[in-house]
This record gives sequence, structure tokens and C-alpha cells, in this order.
Amino acid sequence: MIHVIKHIPRPDAALVEKLSRHGAATVHEAMGRVGAMERSIKPLARGMKICGPAFTVRAQAGDNVMILKAMREARPGDVIVVDCGRCPESGPFGELAAAECQTKGLGGFVTTGSVRDTAEIIAMGFPVFSSGVSIVGTVKESLGLINHPISAGGVIVHPGDIILGDDDGIVVIPREDAADALEKSDARVAKENKTLEKIRAGESIFDIYGYAAVLKRQGCVEEEA
Amino acid sequence: MIHVIKHIPRPDAALVEKLSRHGAATVHEAMGRVGAMERSIKPLARGMKICGPAFTVRAQAGDNVMILKAMREARPGDVIVVDCGRCPESGPFGELAAAECQTKGLGGFVTTGSVRDTAEIIAMGFPVFSSGVSIVGTVKESLGLINHPISAGGVIVHPGDIILGDDDGIVVIPREDAADALEKSDARVAKENKTLEKIRAGESIFDIYGYAAVLKRQGCVEEEA
Amino acid sequence: MIHVIKHIPRPDAALVEKLSRHGAATVHEAMGRVGAMERSIKPLARGMKICGPAFTVRAQAGDNVMILKAMREARPGDVIVVDCGRCPESGPFGELAAAECQTKGLGGFVTTGSVRDTAEIIAMGFPVFSSGVSIVGTVKESLGLINHPISAGGVIVHPGDIILGDDDGIVVIPREDAADALEKSDARVAKENKTLEKIRAGESIFDIYGYAAVLKRQGCVEEEA
Amino acid sequence: MIHVIKHIPRPDAALVEKLSRHGAATVHEAMGRVGAMERSIKPLARGMKICGPAFTVRAQAGDNVMILKAMREARPGDVIVVDCGRCPESGPFGELAAAECQTKGLGGFVTTGSVRDTAEIIAMGFPVFSSGVSIVGTVKESLGLINHPISAGGVIVHPGDIILGDDDGIVVIPREDAADALEKSDARVAKENKTLEKIRAGESIFDIYGYAAVLKRQGCVEEEA
Amino acid sequence: MIHVIKHIPRPDAALVEKLSRHGAATVHEAMGRVGAMERSIKPLARGMKICGPAFTVRAQAGDNVMILKAMREARPGDVIVVDCGRCPESGPFGELAAAECQTKGLGGFVTTGSVRDTAEIIAMGFPVFSSGVSIVGTVKESLGLINHPISAGGVIVHPGDIILGDDDGIVVIPREDAADALEKSDARVAKENKTLEKIRAGESIFDIYGYAAVLKRQGCVEEEA
Amino acid sequence: MIHVIKHIPRPDAALVEKLSRHGAATVHEAMGRVGAMERSIKPLARGMKICGPAFTVRAQAGDNVMILKAMREARPGDVIVVDCGRCPESGPFGELAAAECQTKGLGGFVTTGSVRDTAEIIAMGFPVFSSGVSIVGTVKESLGLINHPISAGGVIVHPGDIILGDDDGIVVIPREDAADALEKSDARVAKENKTLEKIRAGESIFDIYGYAAVLKRQGCVEEEA
Repeated sequence: MIHVIKHIPRPDAALVEKLSRHGAATVHEAMGRVGAMERSIKPLARGMKICGPAFTVRAQAGDNVMILKAMREARPGDVIVVDCGRCPESGPFGELAAAECQTKGLGGFVTTGSVRDTAEIIAMGFPVFSSGVSIVGTVKESLGLINHPISAGGVIVHPGDIILGDDDGIVVIPREDAADALEKSDARVAKENKTLEKIRAGESIFDIYGYAAVLKRQGCVEEEA
Repeated sequence: MIHVIKHIPRPDAALVEKLSRHGAATVHEAMGRVGAMERSIKPLARGMKICGPAFTVRAQAGDNVMILKAMREARPGDVIVVDCGRCPESGPFGELAAAECQTKGLGGFVTTGSVRDTAEIIAMGFPVFSSGVSIVGTVKESLGLINHPISAGGVIVHPGDIILGDDDGIVVIPREDAADALEKSDARVAKENKTLEKIRAGESIFDIYGYAAVLKRQGCVEEEA
Repeated sequence: MIHVIKHIPRPDAALVEKLSRHGAATVHEAMGRVGAMERSIKPLARGMKICGPAFTVRAQAGDNVMILKAMREARPGDVIVVDCGRCPESGPFGELAAAECQTKGLGGFVTTGSVRDTAEIIAMGFPVFSSGVSIVGTVKESLGLINHPISAGGVIVHPGDIILGDDDGIVVIPREDAADALEKSDARVAKENKTLEKIRAGESIFDIYGYAAVLKRQGCVEEEA
Repeated sequence: MIHVIKHIPRPDAALVEKLSRHGAATVHEAMGRVGAMERSIKPLARGMKICGPAFTVRAQAGDNVMILKAMREARPGDVIVVDCGRCPESGPFGELAAAECQTKGLGGFVTTGSVRDTAEIIAMGFPVFSSGVSIVGTVKESLGLINHPISAGGVIVHPGDIILGDDDGIVVIPREDAADALEKSDARVAKENKTLEKIRAGESIFDIYGYAAVLKRQGCVEEEA
Repeated sequence: MIHVIKHIPRPDAALVEKLSRHGAATVHEAMGRVGAMERSIKPLARGMKICGPAFTVRAQAGDNVMILKAMREARPGDVIVVDCGRCPESGPFGELAAAECQTKGLGGFVTTGSVRDTAEIIAMGFPVFSSGVSIVGTVKESLGLINHPISAGGVIVHPGDIILGDDDGIVVIPREDAADALEKSDARVAKENKTLEKIRAGESIFDIYGYAAVLKRQGCVEEEA
Repeated sequence: MIHVIKHIPRPDAALVEKLSRHGAATVHEAMGRVGAMERSIKPLARGMKICGPAFTVRAQAGDNVMILKAMREARPGDVIVVDCGRCPESGPFGELAAAECQTKGLGGFVTTGSVRDTAEIIAMGFPVFSSGVSIVGTVKESLGLINHPISAGGVIVHPGDIILGDDDGIVVIPREDAADALEKSDARVAKENKTLEKIRAGESIFDIYGYAAVLKRQGCVEEEA
């Protein structure tokens, strides 16, 4: 078995750039409501945004040696995505690690665990998404896996999938669906902008989309106006 | 059975306006420590404040068609209050819905579930209280109830009750108790302001209210000074 | 049994001042990864920092009379640390209490429960760490203990131990270990600054600390470059 | 304001007896999927079943004096239902209280908090549903409400509503809907028994109810057989 | 896109039978401590055991139409594994569904959500693992996926992987690793049986495995005997 | 610093034996409602009971080498109490460890983490209290502390304190308070037995203890009988 895989397929850079202009919720909806990580994984501060290919890590809870190895091997633009299970009471990523990621031009860091040195990380402006903040330190002893498929926040992530995150959370876009997701997101935004105009003009979403039919079909009884 | 009730009793507008000048914690205390929703229901951003009559919705988790219907029927100043149970992993309220609420002059939106498009909602300044943020979308299929009594955040809410929320959380003021709640809140603030003066002059709350008697009654033994 | 102990040993003020310049995560690591309170106890707002001797309180959940008594007896610089168990759904500390703490020059307030009047407390700039925000009020009836050892956030706190808290959380420094903790923290920062220079120059943490040896020892198999 | 209401409307005893033969899940479905308390409120032991009119209590967390008062006033068959908020870390109901309930012939005890002396309660066979078990004791100091509407487990409970609980959880049947709920439950069971026969004969639920049409409407693509 | 895949690779039946004699914890250890689902997914009653190939379902929370479809298509011995996200407050699997699974000879049912009719299911002896029990019903409206890879309990499950569950929880054995996992589990049990003999003869695990060396390497200081 | 302390003070064996006849809730009340561990720490099966002096361990989450060391050093009757923080997703205590504890005649095992091989442990009848069950394994690498004071389940435990646990949970009795706790528990039981007789004869707890006075003092208004 190969623990550390170094070569991963990466999506087209122009596609990544275009997807980065969309919100995570938009792409999630456009793809048919799939790919959303659990809401417990949040940005460290409002306004942080990530969009890039996943460089995946399966690490033991409370141990960060595989994370450091992944940072060493990742390429500019890559987003490190760490599955260390449900143990948010330890913080294996801090100021030094964020500095290395930033120096190398990585696209962001996502973990199912916690991070620390949050004031310093926010100040340097490197985007980090975690399920918590904890000052508890970690050891450097346990083997894990790099660039195998992982399960993070309830979603399967393959190396090279696109990780798109903002204030609302993270959506995982399978690499082979990226072009389709972009096209549908563009269409969705165009449609929503028209709807927004109608709403600002005083119409109701309920009427615009004709949901009266749904309620009627369910046998809804309304009070007379 | 009538699912959608459209006419609700509303409290006196002047009363609502005066209550809106008080904090939620103050009114909660003044009413005798009742009516506080669970602390899991929080404002989307610091500084958001709501005060208005409840327009209640009982919706199926993961389905927002009744919420859209309620928005269509509510009047300016009304606060939509949604009980969709404990399922914060879906986000049936986003930018378009907030835009409609704002265009119609609604007073705010409160849900036991999650919301999304949070950056856009915060930017437009419409007050939203939820138990989480999630990008997961919803369907539009299931019948629910509008303007029946609901249970939200552990409190019973009747249509027309006053919903008062700020950074500390939400308190529900039964419509018929509103005048009494205002009077007691005014009195409490007046008393607290006097206490605050004494505190800033160096006195202890413990001494001002004579709590030594409580400890003595409980058999408290103190070390000699 | 003496419920209220008034005289506690306090650490050297110069030592406290020097420790306050370090981050909580740094001191936690420097002491050998001990003393970190659970991450559920957080500052009320980003940027709040505390550093001072613990003035400990064991209070009944939902009752704040012992907290008020402790505030009356504490000295300037002391940090009130309250163990009221796991009941974050009540808020026994608000604007008036914070005003008293600030007027007396106390160093901060830490509780395993909740607080309220958070907008007012943040505005006055007094540092408060809690496990939540709740508007639910409390009674003033039950006896507790002041300046006995307590267990707060999973850590034993003795009166006079140094409480150091920032955005990452709280670390408890036993009074008798303070000088040692300072020395090791200074050394750690010096070492980290050098490491940071190397990182900013393009080196990897993984290489700087020679972690390849760890992975090799565990039988790690790497893909050829 | 009257804190302690003693006279409550009670449902027809024969109706209660007939409803008690149904499972909680059955009645919940038959009523149109409403009235289910949150799943955190569970029987103390497998096989416990309750069915009787609600005798409601709103008690302060950590205080059981109103509970004792309610037990004093309730009548044989009544089910005490306590809303003491979300504070499962205290246990205000134990062996003595259960003995009193049993001696008086009460129908059961339901609480949003915890209980203790569980081995003794299970041995005596009195049905108790709670959100936890805790040895932590309570005080007897705080006023509450008896036989006002309460919110327990996310459901509104009026005095006299029927509380039906078994291994699956609790459903609240509004007193005025009891006859209708019974009729629909009987019909549902009759229908399910027929379905069960078909299933045991080898048919699929999917086919029996014709759900292929649902999937077809949603655009489902199936692999060829 | 094909939503419903019907043909899946299945592991060798003899291999499955032999693995079923091992405990889930044993196989998890033997495979190198991977594949364990989160502990929140538990058997409905002590003593339930499952071992069979995964027949995977990705269902919308609160909707069970895809689950019913999967039950229709699965073969004897298959274990239905459902990822419906984190929404344990609904129960889309009950007595009728369990009866169908049992009649068809399926090997078990595993879900990240809840189930109901638990007394009936336990009585019929069909093995079910879930993250909770809830009487809340579901709709039958939403499209999902059958026999695509899913993420359940923090583990990736491919159709045909072996699901092994007992009182300790569930371990997922990738189909291609099954023979290797069996061999290592056999070896582990043989070794543990020898260790158990030594333990029962009075030796310490600490001494048997020579852990004194580990503590010495970490600088452990012991009190003199 | 000495990591492993081997000699601890132990309470009088006769005292321990007499305390073991009381329930944990009884002793907790008799001591003045202190010493109860959080309710998340539960017996592995109904009916398990422990009573013996604490042999304390501070272990790294996910590492059990210090636990094995403690088992090696403990004496018959001792109860191993492990603080490994809040990380119930790993199970560092299983069949082999339980067999060693049982062979050595230890009094029980208590942990803030999880355990596994639960069917085997229950079958052998060794009493184990934990905050969960997990098949996830652990490493054997990290130094910890043996027989230093620890914080477990929100309570401070000193080596030699008496750990009393049953179906209701665990209470920690400080060694120097044991005689007093026994005396007060005996008195409480005697008093409760008399109260129980009155209750079984039809009296109310509310009347027996005269709680009408409490409600009257709080201004309680009752409906006329």
C-alpha cells in the first residue's frame, strides 16, 4: 500500500477561477443539492473564501505529522482537506503551519478538527475552515494517508475535487462535474437575478414560482381573505 | 381544519415601539423570568435587533413552501417565526427570501432551523435569527400550518405575540401582557440605573441588595477578614 | 467547614505581566500540553484577553449569589473563575455585574455557564469568557464555595493559579509553575521566530524538524516523485 | 395571576383506554405527523408505556417544589408533564416521588430534565420518561406554574391533552382531537395489517404503494435489469 | 446520470461468513485501525450482529422513498446502508420495512438517521443499526442515489464493501481487502488468546508488550517502589 | 517531576464496604449535593456497581499506555479513574484490559473516554463506567500522569478518594469526608424510610415537608379547590 500519493489530477484552472465567483450555496443548489459539508465546518472569520483542488489527508486525531507532510507536497492553489474524525478538542494547525501554506501559495486549509493561533491566522489573511478552535496541542507519531479518497463533513472528497467555501460553508464539486456545475450555476444566477428584480418590484416568490399549486395538491385549506 | 389563517390580532404599534427600546434580557427579567427562547437561536450578526408581532409557521424540516406562503401573507412590521423542529442541517431561507421580506417591510425572521446566503443577508441589513447556517437546500412539497400556536426554542408562540430579539437572544411577550411588560421593564431600568450609579461609585451589588442575609440563612461560614 | 475563604496566595505581579504577553496556546505547549480548558469556554468577542490570579467560585447552576459575594471580596487584577457545572441555559452575569468588576479593577470573568447583556459588556471592554450567551435569569438562594479548588472546563483551578485567556481559549498556569512556564514560553517563542523565518524563506516545517524519520519508522510508503 | 390551576378538562376514559392500545408512532402518523416530542425524551427502561391526560408543570431548572405540588394535586390516571427547560444535569425526581405517584395511581411522569434512583423506579414498575439520568439534586425555592399550557420536547401541551408514550417516544394528542385520532389510528392499523400480509407474502412496499410513479416524476434513471 | 444502479460486485460468501465470526473491534484493529463508523450509529438492542455486502442509499433527510426502492432491489444477505445526513429527528424505517427486509432475507439495515417501531423490530429479531429512535414520520418525494459510493458515519462505503457490526459499533471492510482483513483478524485473535492466558495467569499487559521502553523513551519518572 | 506515583493513601476498608451499600444519589445528597460526575459517564450495563479508592490517571486522548501502566501498579479493590479529556470517539480499554483488572481484583474502571469489547466485558461482569462505546483503537506513545489529582466528569478526584457508582452515575467522596458521608447517608436513609412509609400510606411529600410555606413566601396564587 502506498500511503503518500503525490501526483493528483487537477481541474482546469480557468474553471476553478470561474467557479470561485459563485457562492457555495449557489453551486450546491445548481448541482442538485449534493456535496455540502456539515455546517459544523466553518470559516475562522467572516469573509474568508476558498476555491481550489483538494489535496486530501487522513490523519489520526491529535496527531499532525501527516498534515505537515501534505503541506510539504502540495502545489500552489491546492486546498489541504483533512479528515481527522470527530475530535475537535485538539488544534493541530497554527500560526507556523498557516505561514508555510501562505508562503507556498496554497489555496486554503479545511479540517474536521480544530485549529489555534486564530488571531495570527486571521491577521495574515490565509483562509482556514475548521469545526472549532482549541489550544490543545498534538503529537507527531502516527501514520495516515495522503491523496486517498476521504470522508470529511459527511461528504466524500477525492483528490482533485474542487473545494468551494465561503461564509455559508463548503461544497465539494467532483472534478469531472466541474464544467457542468459552472454552467448550471451561471444559469441559476441569471434566473435568480431576474427573480430578484421581480421581488424588489413587490412580487412574492410564492407567486413567481406558482407554489399555490403545490399547496392545493396537498389539500391546503386557507382562511378567506 | 384551516391550515392557513390570515387574520391575526396585533399588539398596539406604540407599545411595540416602546418595548423595542428595551433589551431582551431586561424584559425577560421584568416579566418574571419567562418567555426566553433557547440560546441556540441567535442573530446572524452582532447588533441585529427585532421587535414585532409574531406571524407563525409550522413547517416540515427541509421544506420551505409554507415559509414562502407566510411571507406572502404577512404585513409590514410582522416577524415571521418558524418552527421546523430540530434539523439545523438545512437552510430554507436565503437571499431571495430576505429580499422579499425586506421589500415588504417585515420586521424580521426567526427560525429553529438554519439559513444561508448569510453574507448577502447581513449586507442588506435584514434581521434574521436562526439556530445555524447551512448551505443545504430544501424541497417545496409539504403542508404545514400558518398562524396556529407553535413551540419555538422551548417557548409557546401565539400569532400576534411580540418577538423581541437582540444579541442576547429572543424573548416572547404574550400580546395581552405587553403593556404590563413595558411598565415593569421601565421600572426595572430606572432601578438598575440607580444601582449602576452606586456600583460606579464603588459599592457592591452584594451589599446594595443585602444578600448577606441570604448567605447567613443558609449557614454560610466565612473566613475572618 | 469554611465556605468563603478570603485570603489567597497570589503570584508575583511582574511574572503575571510577563506571561500576559504570551498567547494561551504558546504557554500551553511550553508547559508540556497541559492546563487547557475545554474549547467551549470562549471570549465574548474577538480580541479579549485576560491574565491574572484565579479567584474561584463553586456556584449552583442558575444561582448567582456566590458570584456576587466573590466579586465583593476579590482584589484588583483578580480573575473570577466560576464552576457552575454544565448548564449554559442560564445567564447569571450581566451589565451590572460587569460594571462592578470593571470599577473594582478586576482582571476578568470566566464561567462554565452563560452570560447576558453582551452588547453592553463588549461596549465597556471588560473581558468575559463563557460557554454561551443566555438571557435566562437566575435566583439568589444557594450556598456555594469561594476559593476552594474547582474544576472548570476540565481543568483543576486552585485559587491564585494564573488564568491566561485569548481568542484561542484559556490555559491555567499553576501558581508554583509560573516562573518555569514563563521561561519555557520565552524559549519557545524565540525558537518559533527562527522557524518562522525559515518558513517565510520557503522551507517546510516537515523538513525543519526532520519528521521524515518519524514516517520512516512507521513504515510509510511514498509514491515516487 | 393564578399559578396553580387545579381543575382541568379530562378526556373520556374509554377513549384513553382505546388509544393506549396503539403505538405512539401509529397515532403520530394517523394524526398527520404532528405531536411527536423530541427523541431525547425516552422511557427509563424498554417496555414502559404511558397513556393519560396531561397534568402540566412549568418548573425552574434545578428546583422541584412545583413538581411535588403537582403530584399532590393530580388525580389517578393523570400523567405529570414537566417543562424545566434544557438542563438535563439535575435529577429532581427519584424513588420517593415515584412511590407517591404510584401510590396515588398516577399514569406516569414525563420531564424535559433528568431523574434518578432509576434502579428503584424500574423495580417498582412506574413509567417514567426523561431526557436523562442524573444524581445531581435540586432545591425547593422557585415558583412555577401548574396546568398552564407548556412547551415540552418541542410540542405544546395543554392540560388534559393525552400523553401517549412507548419505546419509540411520546406523542401528544390534543384532547379535542382524541376521537378523530383513535378512528384514524384504527384505520391505519387495519390497512397496515393488510400490507403486512402482502409483505410477508413477498411483495415490496415500493410496489404495493406504487412509488415508481414518484421516482418517474422526479426524473429517476435506473440501470437496466 | 444513472440514479439507481442494480448490479454490484459482492464479496465471496465464504469470506463473509468467516469474517462474521470476528468482532468489529478486532477487524478494525487488524486492518490497521481504519473503517470504524462514528459511535453514534448503534444497534437497536444488545446482541444484534450484522455481516454482509453493502447495498448503499443516498437519501434526502425526512424522505424514505429511495430506501424502499433499495429494499426492493437488494438480494438476500445484503446490508442496506443509508446516508441521509445528520437528521436523527425523523424515523423513516419501521415495522413494515423491517418485515420486508426480513422476508427477503436481507442481512441488516444501517442508517445515519433514526428508526421507529423498535419494540416490534427487536421482537422480530432483524438487526438494525441507527443513530437514534424517533417516531417522526417522513415523506416520499425526493430523488436520491442507489449503489453509488456514500459517506456514512464518517466512513466511505462502496457498494459491495462488507459491513460488520456488533455491540461495539460498525466497521466497513473494503471488498478488495476482505481476505487480508480476515487473515490478520485470525492472527490477532490467536495472539490475543495467548495474551489472555498470560493475563489470567497474573501478568500485566504492560509487561507482556514491553511498554516500559515507551515510557522510558518519553522521559517518564517513577516513584521508587 | 514524578510522573508515576505509586503509594497513595487509601480509605478504611470497612468504611468503603459500608458506603458501598448506599446509592450514589443518596451519598451525593447526604454530602450536601457535591461530588457528582457529569451524567455522560454511565455504567456499561444496568446493575453495575463500583465502590473503592481512586487510582487516578491523566492520559492523552487516543493513547492508553498510561492506563496499562496504572493497571499494573494498582492494588486489589482500587478503582482506576481516567481523565483523557472529551474525546469519546476512541476506545482504549477492551477485553484484555478488563481481564487483567478482574484477575487482579481491581474494583472497577472509570473513564471520560470510550471503551470497546463491551459484550465480552459485560459477560465477565467487571464494572466499567465510560462516556461512550467506540471501536476506534489507540496508540501507545504519550506520557501522562499517575496518581496526581485529576478532573473527571467535572469533579476533582484525588488518589484515594472513594468512587461510588451505580445506575444513576458516579459520586466522588473525598477520603477525609468518608466517615462523615457515611454517617449522614445512614441518617438520610433512615429518614427516607420513614417518609416512604408515610407516602405508601397516602401522604404527599409536599405536605410531609411543609413546602406550602415555600410557595406562600414566593407569592403563589392557587385556584380554589
